Amino acid sequence: MKPRLSTTVIALLLSLLCNIAAAQNRAGWIWYPGDFEIWLSNQMQATRSERDAYFLPFWRLYSHQPQVNFARRVELAAPEDIVVHAEGKHAVTIDGKFAQGDQQRITVPAGKHHINIQVYNPASPPAIHVQGKTIRSDDSWAVGPRPYPGAEGPQAVLASSWNLHAPAAPPSQYKLPTREIPAKTIARGKHSLFVDFGQETIGYVKLKNLRGHGKVSLYYGESLEEAQSPETCEILDHYTVADSRGDFTSDRSRAMRYVNIQLGEGMTADDVTLMYEYLPLTRRGQFKSSDPELNRIWDVSVRTLELNTREFFLDGIKRDHWLWAGDAVQTYLMNYYSFFDNDAVKRTTRALRGADPVDMHINTILDYSLYWFIGVQEYYLYSGDEAFVKSIYPRMVSLMDYVLARRNANGMLEGLPGDWVFVDWADMPKDGELSVIQLLFARSLEAMASSADIAGDHQKAAGYRQISDELKAKIMATFWDAGQQAFVHSRVQGQLNRLVTRHPNMFALMLGYLDPAKEAAVKRLLMGDKAAKITTPYMRFYELAALAQSGQHGYVTGQIKDYWGGMLRDGATCFWEQYDPRQKGVERYAMYGKAFGMSLCHAWGASPVYLLGKYYLGVTPTRPGYAAYTVEPDLGGLEWMEGTVPTPRGDIALRVSAKRIEIATADGQGVLRLSSATPPRAGAATVRSLGGDRYEVDLMPRSNLAVDYAARIQH
Amino acid sequence: MKPRLSTTVIALLLSLLCNIAAAQNRAGWIWYPGDFEIWLSNQMQATRSERDAYFLPFWRLYSHQPQVNFARRVELAAPEDIVVHAEGKHAVTIDGKFAQGDQQRITVPAGKHHINIQVYNPASPPAIHVQGKTIRSDDSWAVGPRPYPGAEGPQAVLASSWNLHAPAAPPSQYKLPTREIPAKTIARGKHSLFVDFGQETIGYVKLKNLRGHGKVSLYYGESLEEAQSPETCEILDHYTVADSRGDFTSDRSRAMRYVNIQLGEGMTADDVTLMYEYLPLTRRGQFKSSDPELNRIWDVSVRTLELNTREFFLDGIKRDHWLWAGDAVQTYLMNYYSFFDNDAVKRTTRALRGADPVDMHINTILDYSLYWFIGVQEYYLYSGDEAFVKSIYPRMVSLMDYVLARRNANGMLEGLPGDWVFVDWADMPKDGELSVIQLLFARSLEAMASSADIAGDHQKAAGYRQISDELKAKIMATFWDAGQQAFVHSRVQGQLNRLVTRHPNMFALMLGYLDPAKEAAVKRLLMGDKAAKITTPYMRFYELAALAQSGQHGYVTGQIKDYWGGMLRDGATCFWEQYDPRQKGVERYAMYGKAFGMSLCHAWGASPVYLLGKYYLGVTPTRPGYAAYTVEPDLGGLEWMEGTVPTPRGDIALRVSAKRIEIATADGQGVLRLSSATPPRAGAATVRSLGGDRYEVDLMPRSNLAVDYAARIQH
Repeated sequence: MKPRLSTTVIALLLSLLCNIAAAQNRAGWIWYPGDFEIWLSNQMQATRSERDAYFLPFWRLYSHQPQVNFARRVELAAPEDIVVHAEGKHAVTIDGKFAQGDQQRITVPAGKHHINIQVYNPASPPAIHVQGKTIRSDDSWAVGPRPYPGAEGPQAVLASSWNLHAPAAPPSQYKLPTREIPAKTIARGKHSLFVDFGQETIGYVKLKNLRGHGKVSLYYGESLEEAQSPETCEILDHYTVADSRGDFTSDRSRAMRYVNIQLGEGMTADDVTLMYEYLPLTRRGQFKSSDPELNRIWDVSVRTLELNTREFFLDGIKRDHWLWAGDAVQTYLMNYYSFFDNDAVKRTTRALRGADPVDMHINTILDYSLYWFIGVQEYYLYSGDEAFVKSIYPRMVSLMDYVLARRNANGMLEGLPGDWVFVDWADMPKDGELSVIQLLFARSLEAMASSADIAGDHQKAAGYRQISDELKAKIMATFWDAGQQAFVHSRVQGQLNRLVTRHPNMFALMLGYLDPAKEAAVKRLLMGDKAAKITTPYMRFYELAALAQSGQHGYVTGQIKDYWGGMLRDGATCFWEQYDPRQKGVERYAMYGKAFGMSLCHAWGASPVYLLGKYYLGVTPTRPGYAAYTVEPDLGGLEWMEGTVPTPRGDIALRVSAKRIEIATADGQGVLRLSSATPPRAGAATVRSLGGDRYEVDLMPRSNLAVDYAARIQH
Repeated sequence: MKPRLSTTVIALLLSLLCNIAAAQNRAGWIWYPGDFEIWLSNQMQATRSERDAYFLPFWRLYSHQPQVNFARRVELAAPEDIVVHAEGKHAVTIDGKFAQGDQQRITVPAGKHHINIQVYNPASPPAIHVQGKTIRSDDSWAVGPRPYPGAEGPQAVLASSWNLHAPAAPPSQYKLPTREIPAKTIARGKHSLFVDFGQETIGYVKLKNLRGHGKVSLYYGESLEEAQSPETCEILDHYTVADSRGDFTSDRSRAMRYVNIQLGEGMTADDVTLMYEYLPLTRRGQFKSSDPELNRIWDVSVRTLELNTREFFLDGIKRDHWLWAGDAVQTYLMNYYSFFDNDAVKRTTRALRGADPVDMHINTILDYSLYWFIGVQEYYLYSGDEAFVKSIYPRMVSLMDYVLARRNANGMLEGLPGDWVFVDWADMPKDGELSVIQLLFARSLEAMASSADIAGDHQKAAGYRQISDELKAKIMATFWDAGQQAFVHSRVQGQLNRLVTRHPNMFALMLGYLDPAKEAAVKRLLMGDKAAKITTPYMRFYELAALAQSGQHGYVTGQIKDYWGGMLRDGATCFWEQYDPRQKGVERYAMYGKAFGMSLCHAWGASPVYLLGKYYLGVTPTRPGYAAYTVEPDLGGLEWMEGTVPTPRGDIALRVSAKRIEIATADGQGVLRLSSATPPRAGAATVRSLGGDRYEVDLMPRSNLAVDYAARIQH
């Protein structure tokens, strides 16, 4: 037996090693960083329609570069055949000399050589796929505007890739996968089929065994009423079908729960299904608690986020298919507590930024440019992905150059002609120097400083830091109102507007810009009724985050159950763009002056994913990529909760009750912080007192820990 | 009879008026300035091949913008139907509201309205064609990145068009026209056809009634020897033909005089013709003289220029199909004395410049960026086209920003890493501060200053003028060598290189930067043998222009007959990229280390067109668009000459002998200047003495004048 077993083991090991080697030597399609993302996002955004009309983005769309060079130095022990696929016209040189004859199968001689592949493609991003025995296209290739010998020169950068490995599936052909899902109910009329898929979904409607010829009209509805309103529904498709004898599948991916299908005279279909279109994602983050409603809120939030996590993070699946930086930066944070899909963050960040030169704000919105910088720094904190920061840094600099050039004489930002100052849909003055804008500006300068350090540009880092420090001092001196003990709203032409809004106060708190006295004052403000209430889920995200960060979990739990629970009680299967519990019936769906203008599956509605992961399970990275992290669980009035928070170093699993905390850690240096009426017991682990009822326990990498304690009483 | 005649006349007049009205209301395809030119030039440049391989440009190719908005305000007495064609996905809004239903036929209501057409097209330039009764797409539309209400905002500019009027022939489908020309001789082998078209030409080879199936290989030759060398010819095409039963036309337009066609076993063709591909041009400029050789030189020069005047001005038709700014600027000048095709100049100027941001010199060549600015100013002088200068001005500024940022501590330009300092193929040091580069820099700053004034940017104009003045003073102080009485070549790391080359001296002379004493010294230098001879037609252009400008016409005539006449005697049917009379046989065709690397139809070989028009017929605009001009004919030793110089205000026709000058003038204020041993007689026109043997006669617009005089004796 022994020899045979050994042979089997060796064969298995060899096979395993070969697979690893094959996986390691798997070539991917590569391109100039941003080119594919810009092109794909343009394609996606240009699908937006408003009934019969295309509704194209109202900001500048950038282009991919029509021509780039991909370069690689190789040192070969033996001659090697490479197979070159390119999207576009291409020319291969080895040491500057054109490969003649076959342009796809090329032999690289033994020895040291410089391969350059130049690609021209005006229609979609120049991209290559190169596979040899040892040579393969990957992110280690240089890419730039100049061919050999300049292809690795100062204008060259490292190439970008994604998960596109098949030579026959190049970037320009990329499509999200689909799978068929059945209708929940179908109501049949003489010439119609009214379909309910049972919940919000997205994809291509398929009419099984469509017979006859004539017009097929699809009226989509996120709500029943919308699908029942062919004259006012937002999204519709008309097709003319010639003598169909098989299945008919629409060619446009649409969001819906319902679809109202009108068929021409004499046409019939056996069944309707949906080719559900999705980005493959793994639900790594989990949350479950003693409160079934909160659990349902978490589930629907993840579903909402999942549907909006596609080629890019969308704001909503029905209407725009556009990228919005302010919305996206929130979805990034939700993503870190659910799918932890770095690629989706990187694609969205690159696509939002576009290319150079910059002549308008991202989405034309002043605050959205600022959020974009912050999003890069947060991505780095969660992912530890230095390579991405280095790669995007030049386009951070050019956007910040644009922003800096638009400061006023006080060094502050205000809306200039052509800028949209959004902040929130709330009714508030937007002219002049808004304090909340200056706070976001200071924060984005800090993001620039730390990114510059990562990129090795320490001189610029110091410059950004100085501007930020000066700005923060000016903000305090200008906008803090000692009488009202709060930041006031704005200054217009040198005159303060002493209106107190929640926005600057909650951002200052969340950004950690306040001394203890100011922090206490702001907490009082946010918990009180003095400042007008926030009505959008978009800003509730930051408001509830700020409140949770200042320990008001019990209040936050109530708010979540009230607001998001309210949507569930009103029949939501995903969370909405806005929600006013006082509105009932069809009026809830109106927005932007249109009967069904509102989105019923809006990414910014999914914020409980972030709030529950970050502030209840309480897991936060403190060094990039979770090299270090803290766990500060807070039940927020729940009896118990359990869940998982994904990290680049594995998942962190928690089970928390008022008496016991069980943790299974990931890699990285973790610290558990907790409040306990009695000194906690943590087995062999050392418990350190932090004063008062606060304690700290070191968490060992990849280990399990149980801590017995006595939770503070929640209100 | 009378009433009938009158009716006919009225009908004719009405028909004429209707035609004029129709022509005036003829819609054209319009696009964002530069977008079509950039895209089309990329497409053209990417056709270059070197045998089997694509040889793509080694500089950055810019992209068109994937999305733009076209906007127009209208005021209608009655509702009007417009027909909208767009290249790309498009959306029409009227006063910001989407047109629903049919997106091609739209009714604009009566009254004042704002039409916005947004177009997205990643693959080719967004373009529109709009035709209504009074509304039509033309250069008066605004175009920019923002839709209504921003489409006419500060980022918008006036749209561009060309001669593309048919809705069914949009910009992306643009092709030069063709016409069939026969072969001069065809030598038939068993499986081959060796074709001579009798002269240099370009187009698609057509095999009449090709029968059989198999491989068709085309080996092109500008020379007999090249076509006879399938292994080393520069350009070849291979086709695999399946069972042909009709004519076969190649799909690549190629330059050739000869084509060596190899057919597969059993394949036959009845005949070979060429689908000659050309830009429709009118030969407005004419030249004829008492010297038949010079006349032949003029004819072949025009033919050479004509073949190279295509979608853009090419350097040569065989090899590159690339745009080169240094070459192009010379062809512009030749064009003003032959076709006066403004569109070709504008297209080439826009294409060469590309878009923003600028991160390398045009063609990567320092001097080529500088020539580009000069080309814009010269175009303005000849054409008077203010609209174009205003339109291109922003991209002049961004290129000059790039140039200015690359000055050294002395405020001078030298080659930095990545720059190619070309100047000439001549063997000369190219490192450090070249005096000729500084002269071109000063001239390009002057071009910027005058363009800035045209664009209304007087502040920048003053700035450019100041930098130019300071630079010119530095050039004189640094490079003028009082001992050698000439500009020396360069300064490297503070050390003058006292080598005297013709280049800075001839440019300083031609640019008018010299005081009389220096001018006389430089003339002596250029007429002598002290400085190394110039060997490329490219720099001979400037050398002979400088010599003619300083009155050395007799010498220049001899040079032209010697150099260009030499090519004709060596069998040229177009003028060559370089010519060394000492080389004989096939070695003449070698260049760039390749047996047939040299171009035998090279635009810069056509300079006699310019030299004879500008310095012999002697016609030069002195105010933009020939609002004023001078005529200073010089026979240069010829017995007589006659010719025509085109202007935007009509042609100026001349007949000149040593005794009499006859002129038919165009519009504009002309002045005839001449030297005469005796006071000239000019009929009723006033003759003014300028001192010595120099005289001046005012030329009336659109009139004829004959002047009797006694020419100076030519040597």
